[in-house]
Parts: sequence; structure tokens; C-alpha cells
Amino acid sequence: MQTSRYQSIKKELKKTQLVDDFLVVEAPLEIQINEKPFAAVMRTPGDDEVLLRGLLYAEDIYKGKAPLLLKNNQTEPNGFAKVQVQIPEKELRKGYLNKRTLLSVSSCGICGKQELDSTETPKKKLKNTPALSMDLLPSMFENMRSKQATFDQTGGSHAAALFDKKHSLLNTKEDIGRHNAVDKCIGDLLQKEQLYKAAFLLVSGRVSYEIISKAFFAKIGTVVAVSACSSLAVDFAKEFGICLIGFSRQGKSTVYAHPNRTQKTA
Amino acid sequence: MQTSRYQSIKKELKKTQLVDDFLVVEAPLEIQINEKPFAAVMRTPGDDEVLLRGLLYAEDIYKGKAPLLLKNNQTEPNGFAKVQVQIPEKELRKGYLNKRTLLSVSSCGICGKQELDSTETPKKKLKNTPALSMDLLPSMFENMRSKQATFDQTGGSHAAALFDKKHSLLNTKEDIGRHNAVDKCIGDLLQKEQLYKAAFLLVSGRVSYEIISKAFFAKIGTVVAVSACSSLAVDFAKEFGICLIGFSRQGKSTVYAHPNRTQKTA
Repeated sequence: MQTSRYQSIKKELKKTQLVDDFLVVEAPLEIQINEKPFAAVMRTPGDDEVLLRGLLYAEDIYKGKAPLLLKNNQTEPNGFAKVQVQIPEKELRKGYLNKRTLLSVSSCGICGKQELDSTETPKKKLKNTPALSMDLLPSMFENMRSKQATFDQTGGSHAAALFDKKHSLLNTKEDIGRHNAVDKCIGDLLQKEQLYKAAFLLVSGRVSYEIISKAFFAKIGTVVAVSACSSLAVDFAKEFGICLIGFSRQGKSTVYAHPNRTQKTA
Repeated sequence: MQTSRYQSIKKELKKTQLVDDFLVVEAPLEIQINEKPFAAVMRTPGDDEVLLRGLLYAEDIYKGKAPLLLKNNQTEPNGFAKVQVQIPEKELRKGYLNKRTLLSVSSCGICGKQELDSTETPKKKLKNTPALSMDLLPSMFENMRSKQATFDQTGGSHAAALFDKKHSLLNTKEDIGRHNAVDKCIGDLLQKEQLYKAAFLLVSGRVSYEIISKAFFAKIGTVVAVSACSSLAVDFAKEFGICLIGFSRQGKSTVYAHPNRTQKTA
């Protein structure tokens, strides 16, 4: 359930028209880990299992390969959902301590960390990640764009896509939340045990620092955005060893960090 | 400090150029209320006092008129800041109980609510709010756009603007976070004791449900967005009595809730 039909009124200067419009669905997913409230994430329903797996991974909460034991997974007709996850206590990682116990929203990637210190620079930066062929970026974005069915219907969703080191598309996902689309992509490859293939992350919107943080935990060395990057995204990309490129459209791109990971031709 | 200069590399097909680029600043503001950690908000620095006042108001935490007593307000050169607020315990409102104790990010409006119930429908909906003259929308958006200095420099910031019932601009603010721009607008009018004048809220981006929630608490009866609205934003707007309009650009608009609050000519 990615979109929902609403009656609306389209108004132009000399015309008013009653129409049925499709809106991107925004609804909360309440997550409990081991019977304790963990987070409530505003997301677009439909890919909850990979969203959950990607979220737990990219926030350094659970990195194991075991199937997530989902108990009492209830999704209401409006997309509101509750899910219970069982994870052996000893396998809960550092990110769980800085846990998101509270409500986060669709546009928010790291709501609920208990301390700012949890966003501090990691000790190991990414190194020797594959080089991105700049020439191929336009067709990579076209490839992602051609699969944005929810955006086509609503104009209101973000997209993310992962590519391997040969610049071939691995997957692409949509969501009302930028970070959720990234979590879904990462979670999907985790389910398939193919995350190691992910070399380049493309996103349809802007990049603030939580996207860089997620890329780091998934060991994805290059992030490319259609739109702007924030100051902190660039600061973190430099620190984490991530090649960060913004405003990638109409044959132009701006490289903000680690330009040595780009090359002209494949 | 709304923007910051970064060295970057602009790449086109046959040209590579080293340039100085301005990025919108994203930095955390850590907020303590009465010596207890309350929230850390990722925001664009420069308007912290009105951001704080607007945030406390629009999340139903503190609605008093007293100056906020800010103690030990430290802002570092990179925009990272900590602020302590003193509020008499008995003046802390319901929103404080569902408090945002944790880190929220720039794109996130209501991070950290303890329970989803805190987003439930209020008992009283807005009624008899001023009618919006659709004919005036293009010039209202132009007016807001002409004041987006940070966007002009960075292409990476959101804007919000408040107008009175005569469709005159009251104020406009920018931020990397959509919701922060709204909080800054509301907080600015609160400081001036003019919030009662606010009739129409215009935003540069999309509308998800937290923007509707903030408009409701500020008693602003109409919200207009350049871009898409989420399903939940429309559901809440209908419930709260808020006229919600999306995709307002190039002389067209789509009305999703309470179309009776619009009129053709002023």
C-alpha cells in the first residue's frame, strides 16, 4: 500500500475540477524489540520487513543474519502497523544503547538517539572502495527514475538505489522518508545476502548527515544525490571516507568529498 | 551562520572546475529544560531563540509569554550549540510529557514523542478561519521566494512564510529542516506577540503530518505547499479543520481539505 486515493479539487485560474488524486501513504510502524518499545517510524507501508532489517543494520543495532522473528505483526487497513522483533540480548549492538525509543517521522533518519555522542566519528574510515564512472551517472539516475512508480502516481515520494561496482542496478526503493528508502535498499540486499555488492548509493533528494551515517555502516563508499548536501553531510563524508556528490543532474555534478574515488570512464 | 563555504569540484562532460560552494549549515542544537535533557534538534543556526520558542509552542510544551530564560547558551564556531531553558514546572504543558528527550534531525518535525497517542486528534477543531484568495497565491509565493537568501546561495534549504488574513506577509524563515522553518516563523510572531495575526502558512516543500500538527497548535487555519502532501497530512487536516492545499505552482493548486476556506478573489 504505497499510495492512497483521495478526492481533491484542482484549481486553475479559470477552471475548477473535482478529481481523484493519489497521495503517497504516510503511516507509523511501531517497533518493539524484545517486548520493549524501540521506535515508531513514519514510513510508506509495503516493505516493512526489509525496512526493519535495513534500519536495524544501518543504525548498528543488529547485524546478524538470522531471520528476524516477527511476532504479532498487525497492519491495519490504513497502513498503521505494530511489529515485535526478538533478538538475543547478546547480539544487540552499540546502536541499541543509543536507541530510538520514541516516535520518529517520515522525513527523519536518526530520531531518538540518546546523545549526540552517538553521532561521533567512527574509528575506521572506508578505504579502497570502487571508483565511480562519472560518465555513467546520467543513465544510472534514469534507471532509478524509471522505476519510481509511487512518485509517478503521487509526486510525493523519495527514491534510493544501490548499484554494484560495475555500475549495474542492484535495487531501488521508494518511501515518503528519504532515509527509509535507503534503509529499504540496504535491508533488501541484506535479506538476499548481497549487501557486499553495493558500491554506489543514489538518492533522489538531498543528503543530510544521517544518510552518510547509514552508508558508512553499510560500507557503501559513494553517495550521489540529485539535490543539495548539508554542511554536516560533507564533514561526515570526509571523516568516514565516503565520496559524496551532489546536484547530479543535467550532465553536471558537484563532488564534495573524496574526488579520488571518481573516474571519467569505466 | 546559515551557510558555510566548501571547496568542491564541479564536473561536466568536458570540464572540471575547482570552485568554492556554499552549503546550508546543518548542526545540532541541544536543548535542556530545567536541567534535564529535552531534545537535540538538527537545524540551521542563526535564529535559535525564535526556533526554540516556536518549537515549545507548536509542540504544546510551553505557551507562556515570559521571556525564555536561557542559561549557558554556548554556540561553537561550527554552529553546534547547547541551550538551557528554565520553565516553571506548573507551566509545562501536555506536550512535555510526550517529550522529545532525544536527538532529532533536520528533516524531522516531531522526533521523540513517547507514544503515537500523542499524535491523536485534538478535541477542538479550527473553525471560521479566514478564507484564502486563490488568485493571490502566486504573488504570495513570489514574495516568500524573493526572501530565500539561503536557498539562493545553497539550493539546499526549505522556507516557510506566514501571512495575515489580508494576505500580507508577516514573516518568512529558512532552515535545512522543513519543520524548523515553520517553528521559526511561529516563534518569531510569538516574540512579537502577533501570532494571532497568522492566517495562512506557506511552505516551499512537501507537507507531512507534523506540519499540520504545528499549524493546528498555532491556530493557523490554512496550509499551502509547493509540493506534495502525504496521506496522513490530509487525514489530519480534515480532522483538525485545516484547509490544506498542495502542488501550488504555475497558477495551479490542488485542494485536499476544507475547500470552503478558499475563495476566488479577495
